[in-house]
Amino acid sequence: MEPWGWCEETWRQRVGKVRAGRSLKPASWKGGARCAVALSFDCDHETSELVLGGNSIGRLSAGEYGSRVGVPRILNTLKRNGISATFFIPAVSALLHEDEARRIVGDGHEIGIHGWIHEFNSILAHEVERELQCRAADTLERVSGQRPLGMRTPSWDFSQHTLQIAQELGLIYDSSLMADDDPYELLGDGVPTGIIELPVEWIRDDGVYFNMDLQSALRPQMSPMAVLDVFRREFDQAWGEGGLFLLTMHPHVIGHRSRMFILEELIAHITSRSDVWVATHGDVARYLKEMTATPTL
Amino acid sequence: MEPWGWCEETWRQRVGKVRAGRSLKPASWKGGARCAVALSFDCDHETSELVLGGNSIGRLSAGEYGSRVGVPRILNTLKRNGISATFFIPAVSALLHEDEARRIVGDGHEIGIHGWIHEFNSILAHEVERELQCRAADTLERVSGQRPLGMRTPSWDFSQHTLQIAQELGLIYDSSLMADDDPYELLGDGVPTGIIELPVEWIRDDGVYFNMDLQSALRPQMSPMAVLDVFRREFDQAWGEGGLFLLTMHPHVIGHRSRMFILEELIAHITSRSDVWVATHGDVARYLKEMTATPTL
Amino acid sequence: MEPWGWCEETWRQRVGKVRAGRSLKPASWKGGARCAVALSFDCDHETSELVLGGNSIGRLSAGEYGSRVGVPRILNTLKRNGISATFFIPAVSALLHEDEARRIVGDGHEIGIHGWIHEFNSILAHEVERELQCRAADTLERVSGQRPLGMRTPSWDFSQHTLQIAQELGLIYDSSLMADDDPYELLGDGVPTGIIELPVEWIRDDGVYFNMDLQSALRPQMSPMAVLDVFRREFDQAWGEGGLFLLTMHPHVIGHRSRMFILEELIAHITSRSDVWVATHGDVARYLKEMTATPTL
Amino acid sequence: MEPWGWCEETWRQRVGKVRAGRSLKPASWKGGARCAVALSFDCDHETSELVLGGNSIGRLSAGEYGSRVGVPRILNTLKRNGISATFFIPAVSALLHEDEARRIVGDGHEIGIHGWIHEFNSILAHEVERELQCRAADTLERVSGQRPLGMRTPSWDFSQHTLQIAQELGLIYDSSLMADDDPYELLGDGVPTGIIELPVEWIRDDGVYFNMDLQSALRPQMSPMAVLDVFRREFDQAWGEGGLFLLTMHPHVIGHRSRMFILEELIAHITSRSDVWVATHGDVARYLKEMTATPTL
Repeated sequence: MEPWGWCEETWRQRVGKVRAGRSLKPASWKGGARCAVALSFDCDHETSELVLGGNSIGRLSAGEYGSRVGVPRILNTLKRNGISATFFIPAVSALLHEDEARRIVGDGHEIGIHGWIHEFNSILAHEVERELQCRAADTLERVSGQRPLGMRTPSWDFSQHTLQIAQELGLIYDSSLMADDDPYELLGDGVPTGIIELPVEWIRDDGVYFNMDLQSALRPQMSPMAVLDVFRREFDQAWGEGGLFLLTMHPHVIGHRSRMFILEELIAHITSRSDVWVATHGDVARYLKEMTATPTL
Repeated sequence: MEPWGWCEETWRQRVGKVRAGRSLKPASWKGGARCAVALSFDCDHETSELVLGGNSIGRLSAGEYGSRVGVPRILNTLKRNGISATFFIPAVSALLHEDEARRIVGDGHEIGIHGWIHEFNSILAHEVERELQCRAADTLERVSGQRPLGMRTPSWDFSQHTLQIAQELGLIYDSSLMADDDPYELLGDGVPTGIIELPVEWIRDDGVYFNMDLQSALRPQMSPMAVLDVFRREFDQAWGEGGLFLLTMHPHVIGHRSRMFILEELIAHITSRSDVWVATHGDVARYLKEMTATPTL
Repeated sequence: MEPWGWCEETWRQRVGKVRAGRSLKPASWKGGARCAVALSFDCDHETSELVLGGNSIGRLSAGEYGSRVGVPRILNTLKRNGISATFFIPAVSALLHEDEARRIVGDGHEIGIHGWIHEFNSILAHEVERELQCRAADTLERVSGQRPLGMRTPSWDFSQHTLQIAQELGLIYDSSLMADDDPYELLGDGVPTGIIELPVEWIRDDGVYFNMDLQSALRPQMSPMAVLDVFRREFDQAWGEGGLFLLTMHPHVIGHRSRMFILEELIAHITSRSDVWVATHGDVARYLKEMTATPTL
Repeated sequence: MEPWGWCEETWRQRVGKVRAGRSLKPASWKGGARCAVALSFDCDHETSELVLGGNSIGRLSAGEYGSRVGVPRILNTLKRNGISATFFIPAVSALLHEDEARRIVGDGHEIGIHGWIHEFNSILAHEVERELQCRAADTLERVSGQRPLGMRTPSWDFSQHTLQIAQELGLIYDSSLMADDDPYELLGDGVPTGIIELPVEWIRDDGVYFNMDLQSALRPQMSPMAVLDVFRREFDQAWGEGGLFLLTMHPHVIGHRSRMFILEELIAHITSRSDVWVATHGDVARYLKEMTATPTL
């Protein structure tokens, strides 16, 4: 039946499956900061090609760039600025680059779940999705020594089961959905879950502006200066509102010579203010959990 | 038969189905204003995903953003500037957000028809299209207390029956077609209908520049500054010609932190002139009806 | 057989079907001008939707805009600047807007062939293509009183028969191909045809930057200022080389309030130089024919 | 089996087929230069249309432009600046334009392999790919008098056999992969091959920003100024790191009047520094081979 023929119960059920609950935007951020900044890097590397079959040696090499060139540049920049960030890593990517995962943790950063092999989690059977997600969490812990507290789904989407799996895994946050700029509690079928959503947005993602696919019309289509301008506006307004600025980047995207200045200038802009708390996603989630201690959180 | 094999009657019939009649551009606008401005917001929210099946929780959350974050920001901006606007709301969206619909009306804005669930009105059977359209009008009235005077079709397109349905519903205006910059009377099969067209244009739509679809090559591809520049040029020339500047926005698009300045700066630019009449679509249509009282209008 | 299995004769035959012959770039242009400028407007109007079936009333209205709003604005601008241009008009478009065709000719502009109903000429059977092309030429002459001297194919492409049809029709020029910036003589199977090519380029076309298709990822993607910059660079270099600057526009594209300044500023820039000859395509072709009188031309 | 069901051996084998080995970035470049620049031009001309079937006379003419207009402009610019570059030429393109190939070599530039007819090398049967590649090398040598030292695959991708074919042909470098900014040694199934990779990137390719396909949504989508800015940033950072700046262009893309300034200004910027070595790809590869003489290189 076409959606315009649905009864009310049907569309209410679809909309209500996973929904934004109460806002978790705090009165102030850690140490009295006016604004919080959470930077993340999705280390897809070779997995974005592997998940398509892994036949393109050219695209595998572009993924390898992320690990060979992008991550070292990013870690140096973060270290130079004394900033901690979160790296969401598909488990296969962590297994292909075990030293990278350990260096990330060793530098004081957080590691989060990002699927097994960057699979399209939202189209998997329930059992397959759960098994991959659990195996991913265990693998990240084994490789890096750090148990993941949160996740970002590879497709920035949830299946009908993703939220339940996150609860079973005991995760305290997710960072894949978009119902707000500021953190909120996820509701599952209308019931508070205690899981904190740290919302992403395509606007605050480097790949949106720079990705390239030879077979389609997808091309890098925004000048780096224009992308910096968008990110800066997002931050400035987050600061103006006393909210959270969360930015997703990819080492094989932002890590290029003509793009690293975006991250560098953005960090310089952010840290030029004294009242900003730059933290990992996990630290943000933990702070919000403390601030809003209630039965469900 | 291929169109190049059509007889003249065929292509004349297709072109003549719905056509622009006489221009309704007035000698001057209300209160002697030189130029009219009509801002509209299409509150699709979750319905743009529901109409595709409603399976993507991620896209539903991006729609929820429109209601949770976008509309409040927009209403605040409009109130601060003393501006009335028109909100075209799919009925399902109004049912999901009844408070929003009431707050919009309570703030002095207009509510217009925008389909039942953002269905593709132009491909529906006649009876289905009519039933959904009538139900949408009744639902908006019941929820908001305001009977809609006009409509914007979800697909910015007409089926062969849309114009007739609008007449049956007694609507005084439509805002979905593009044959002029300034208002005109719609002809149906060459006959004046008394329905006023307040023309839209993709150029004057925020989604065109900012929409994103992960599966295709659609991406935000214009810098916010460039979009503001386009909108400003459209207004400046409307002012130069003494015409109408009509702009369509979407709360889940323009309502973002890095984009609200477009609306803010545009309003500041518009209201810096004393000879501009900023009004709802309904007020513009009513004024034109008065100015051009004739048998058909 | 795949092209990499072709024998040499096959790929040489394909490449040689229609090819650029000798350059017709003159030592100087009419009246000793250093540079020539030929502006053209493709008046597709409703035909670009009709050729797809004509079912979208919305897209038909966007085409109607070209005739109702775009052409009058363009004609006014040309008249104010004393400039003659060429309008390539599908015959069905001329029949839908007979007054427009006559006003164009009355203002001293040239009318050229642009297919019957903007059909994809390069995929038609030989007889169908010829019949449509002949009927288009006769229709334009009957409506406007002016016999076309040249053509621009609707798809900016040739079938295997297009060149022969142009010869049968006695056309002196075509403006659909891209092998040079400056005019050249067309070769058919290696033989000079006497037909002058006035080359187009997507770079020098307004639709490329501004077209929109709701169903695909095609969007207006370049800021108007950036488009003006591209056109200006093309002209400046044509002037630098003493060549031809040929620009294609569409009334339903360039004719909008936020874009007409591109044409206005470009004309101001061009006419700020005293040594530029602005002429119709036909006048340019006739001049080149005189300058290079030889057995084939 | 879906990739998320693969055993570890499968994904490790796919990733390991061709991989980046040790970095070949030297302590300093030839003559003590701080930075190396290698410019290349892929002379696809008519072959990009031929490989699709060669039926579009319009697209063939756009390819012909590359040879008739683009290459002469480029050669003049290079000569005026005393710069040597590398031209990767499909063999069929060289056969269609034998004088061009000879003029390129005569001007002191390098010629490299770029497939037989711009075939999609990565989807061919092993024997077909090898035969075409060998025939291409022999043809280039016969036409130009210069035996190719290296290759760029037409699809910027490798089949499972491409690396082995390059070894059989005795090539010293490839320039098709993307695992680094700076040169590295290619590993085949984990074994050093002695073949030097001079990495390309879509970021450093003109076609990415300017290509046009009427049938899809692909359009020129970046302003020329923005493209120059990207290329300049890539160079500046290469200089900052003491690395290699390698840029791919296409005569039918960059060779246009509104785009040649990108190459001109980039060369002016590069040569304004005294410590830059501008060289052909072959010269860079030979220098690296000398600097890093080891059993495998």
